[in-house]
Amino acid sequence: MQTTSPIRVTVWNEFVHEVKNEVVKGIYPNGIHAVIAEGLKELLGENVIVNTATLEEPEHGLTEASLAETDVLLWWGHCAHGKVSDEVVDRVQERVLQGMGLIVLHSGHFSKIFKRLLGTSCALKWREAGERERLWVCSPGHAIVRGLGECIELPETEMYGEPFGIPTPDEQIFISWFEGGEVFRSGCTWRRGNGKIFYFRPGHETYPIYYNPQVRQVLANAVEWARPEGMWTNALKAPNVPVDQAPEKIVAKGASVHKAGEQGYR
Amino acid sequence: MQTTSPIRVTVWNEFVHEVKNEVVKGIYPNGIHAVIAEGLKELLGENVIVNTATLEEPEHGLTEASLAETDVLLWWGHCAHGKVSDEVVDRVQERVLQGMGLIVLHSGHFSKIFKRLLGTSCALKWREAGERERLWVCSPGHAIVRGLGECIELPETEMYGEPFGIPTPDEQIFISWFEGGEVFRSGCTWRRGNGKIFYFRPGHETYPIYYNPQVRQVLANAVEWARPEGMWTNALKAPNVPVDQAPEKIVAKGASVHKAGEQGYR
Amino acid sequence: MQTTSPIRVTVWNEFVHEVKNEVVKGIYPNGIHAVIAEGLKELLGENVIVNTATLEEPEHGLTEASLAETDVLLWWGHCAHGKVSDEVVDRVQERVLQGMGLIVLHSGHFSKIFKRLLGTSCALKWREAGERERLWVCSPGHAIVRGLGECIELPETEMYGEPFGIPTPDEQIFISWFEGGEVFRSGCTWRRGNGKIFYFRPGHETYPIYYNPQVRQVLANAVEWARPEGMWTNALKAPNVPVDQAPEKIVAKGASVHKAGEQGYR
Amino acid sequence: MQTTSPIRVTVWNEFVHEVKNEVVKGIYPNGIHAVIAEGLKELLGENVIVNTATLEEPEHGLTEASLAETDVLLWWGHCAHGKVSDEVVDRVQERVLQGMGLIVLHSGHFSKIFKRLLGTSCALKWREAGERERLWVCSPGHAIVRGLGECIELPETEMYGEPFGIPTPDEQIFISWFEGGEVFRSGCTWRRGNGKIFYFRPGHETYPIYYNPQVRQVLANAVEWARPEGMWTNALKAPNVPVDQAPEKIVAKGASVHKAGEQGYR
Repeated sequence: MQTTSPIRVTVWNEFVHEVKNEVVKGIYPNGIHAVIAEGLKELLGENVIVNTATLEEPEHGLTEASLAETDVLLWWGHCAHGKVSDEVVDRVQERVLQGMGLIVLHSGHFSKIFKRLLGTSCALKWREAGERERLWVCSPGHAIVRGLGECIELPETEMYGEPFGIPTPDEQIFISWFEGGEVFRSGCTWRRGNGKIFYFRPGHETYPIYYNPQVRQVLANAVEWARPEGMWTNALKAPNVPVDQAPEKIVAKGASVHKAGEQGYR
Repeated sequence: MQTTSPIRVTVWNEFVHEVKNEVVKGIYPNGIHAVIAEGLKELLGENVIVNTATLEEPEHGLTEASLAETDVLLWWGHCAHGKVSDEVVDRVQERVLQGMGLIVLHSGHFSKIFKRLLGTSCALKWREAGERERLWVCSPGHAIVRGLGECIELPETEMYGEPFGIPTPDEQIFISWFEGGEVFRSGCTWRRGNGKIFYFRPGHETYPIYYNPQVRQVLANAVEWARPEGMWTNALKAPNVPVDQAPEKIVAKGASVHKAGEQGYR
Repeated sequence: MQTTSPIRVTVWNEFVHEVKNEVVKGIYPNGIHAVIAEGLKELLGENVIVNTATLEEPEHGLTEASLAETDVLLWWGHCAHGKVSDEVVDRVQERVLQGMGLIVLHSGHFSKIFKRLLGTSCALKWREAGERERLWVCSPGHAIVRGLGECIELPETEMYGEPFGIPTPDEQIFISWFEGGEVFRSGCTWRRGNGKIFYFRPGHETYPIYYNPQVRQVLANAVEWARPEGMWTNALKAPNVPVDQAPEKIVAKGASVHKAGEQGYR
Repeated sequence: MQTTSPIRVTVWNEFVHEVKNEVVKGIYPNGIHAVIAEGLKELLGENVIVNTATLEEPEHGLTEASLAETDVLLWWGHCAHGKVSDEVVDRVQERVLQGMGLIVLHSGHFSKIFKRLLGTSCALKWREAGERERLWVCSPGHAIVRGLGECIELPETEMYGEPFGIPTPDEQIFISWFEGGEVFRSGCTWRRGNGKIFYFRPGHETYPIYYNPQVRQVLANAVEWARPEGMWTNALKAPNVPVDQAPEKIVAKGASVHKAGEQGYR
């Protein structure tokens, strides 16, 4: 028997619409992050330690210290992407490259951190009409779909449609069918550096999506899937290997732009 | 018989070491860009129209107008990555996502545009010792290796070593062997949006790398490979599809955070 | 101006249902291959030389000689996959690994050659109900979608549904929406060896799919996209490199299972 | 705290050279499989249950029953690939597609099961000269490199050289440098169906490779990495979805080649 320590999760939410919009406040009175955190605790119990963080906290609640103790970060944002500081985005990116898992939710497709890590537009079509969505499982047996049937059906959702401006996913977990006639790559994974990234589409704030048991199951599964297998602590370093430390004996030849012991350019 | 119009190429170079460093000036008196441009013209003749651009030009020579007329952009930079304006990086990224090919050379692994498009550290090990390098072809028959044998041998190069902080390449074109004992993924392709990206390692400024006939052949091949097959002109748009324009007839239900006709959040 | 020689295309069809089934015979009296060939000639004119081959011909019309003169092979099969000889499958596989393009159509997902090259089940869900399909473009600007709008709509098709048992595609070109509620990865590319592979879903024999102008456009585009960029002629060879021909001077040490000059095991 | 059950491992070995060749018998008197099994038990202890199977056993020791109780299969073969029955290869492939992990070792690159799952030539260059090899870690922090430094150095190995005829790996774990001047993608992962595949190069039978502590560490890590996260039990099924069970209400239109309730063609 093997035992593993609890997964340290941080649920990040901009927490804006739940304050300003009456419909959203009615569904998520304590914020979307509170409901997501509750779902994770319910399903993962003592295998998880869940914290939350929001935009208005100092450093958005994502300090060096809090990230250093986060194994998996969930990200929900929509109308305030531009208010997230670049410094915090740099920090989250570095932590992902080292190994922290990142789960980006719904409108987080346009968050700075998602665009930063993928490098593409992350754009898509959209329509807010409360239409029916069916998320089909493309990878049966994958850790992220544990406990699901062949699809998840959501009675009322916002539509997201292709083309979705992303690099080809490493794994296609879900593809959505929409009542209005569109399709979308709703569950996708990528590895960037040593970190695992999962994008999961559902989550529009005017519908009670994060109370849905299957959606909660996916988030719990994804947290387990995304936990680091190990850390690449110096992922940003570009070390010089001096001639006398080369694995094979060599004699330096030719001219240099660097002096011995100098750092490289960045 | 099919005829195709010439490929419009821009060779971008920061053009700093060729001015400040006597060794580099001796090898590339008119700049690395001039020698690369000359090589492309020599090999591709009237199938190519080659321009150059450098850091010191207004907007680094990469205006909206010049990019709109560029099919493939080559990028050489080393000590001045930080001086490239973010606005120009945004513009180059958008053009790549639309379809422009991008060929990133040598120390350009740390350029803003390469890190922007890949989303990872792009870090590596390095040593400047004039050692021998052998670039092995991993994809015989690929457009980029046309006319080459099983490897390219360079008598004196800077060493770049793994781990190279990149997303898994779509295609592995070259892997390098170094005299000092390291290896490196020296030729890699990725597609980002509608643009093709090729990273090619050789090119340290203290060695006459861009006069090497095989290196020149690779650059000419890569220019032909990277030319756009078509354009994704609105790659950054995230259009709303109004309910009455949904492909299938639907009736709007539920609440909204957006008003009819409103733009989405970014 | 650059000129290129015509693309040599072979359209392969098992040609069984067009003979046995009255409905299919009514739509494709000379066989599906004849209609596909006609479409390619119409759109590509003198840029293409189109041949056809069928199951009943000697060696299924795919002799060493005919494959050696084929740049791109299209494959349609349905009820007679098991009648294709393994020897011919070996031959086609080798030619693809060398560089020949392969376009697999519709029920060809279960052909021996597709399963051979992908290594997975290639299984899917299906329903024959003449329902509406909409193939959404996921990669605007890609060579394969040239001339199309944002989707192709087919009024009556067979349904194919996820999960589709394939390795993650290199590029996702189309995803289908079906009237009955399913989705499917309808246009996918992979590179295997030096050959480009495109799977394209439409094509059920009881509907006049290959007369549809947009479907014909996709096939013509795919033929242009899949043409070899070069050949990897010895793709199946596993050459021994004798000690005295090693790129670096080495002295043999240790014991061997092979004698000098011996072939390796396969 | 979470507990997990032991991983059920089967180490498969053709077990031919250890019987026929004196050098190999001297190094592996009880067979390569025995030494690999011993290493796994040493490092994974009660987290693993290890069985072995060899070519000469009935059904090569890979019966339906034994595979049904295998989570991860390791495969070593060299001179007897052709003696493995196609029926057993079919069975192993199906089990991998369902979720069993597969670790292919050294000359197993030419095994039927590896070629079957990858679909390519799996060919490479080779030289048996007891030269030095250095396997560089390309993915620090990955589960497979846990406990390693930046490279593994082997004093005497057979050389394998690029081009290696494989589909682009999902993840590049190791790349080798050889004394004689070549390079090789020595550690690669792919997912096929629901199964994880890891190819690991070291292991020539005339050198005591599987006694090396770092090689043993990699195998133990890989076993933990490759264990199934869940099973896709019906991975080979291609189910019909009858019209009256379509997720959305539809009315069948048009003609059919199948009768109601009929199986599809394969």
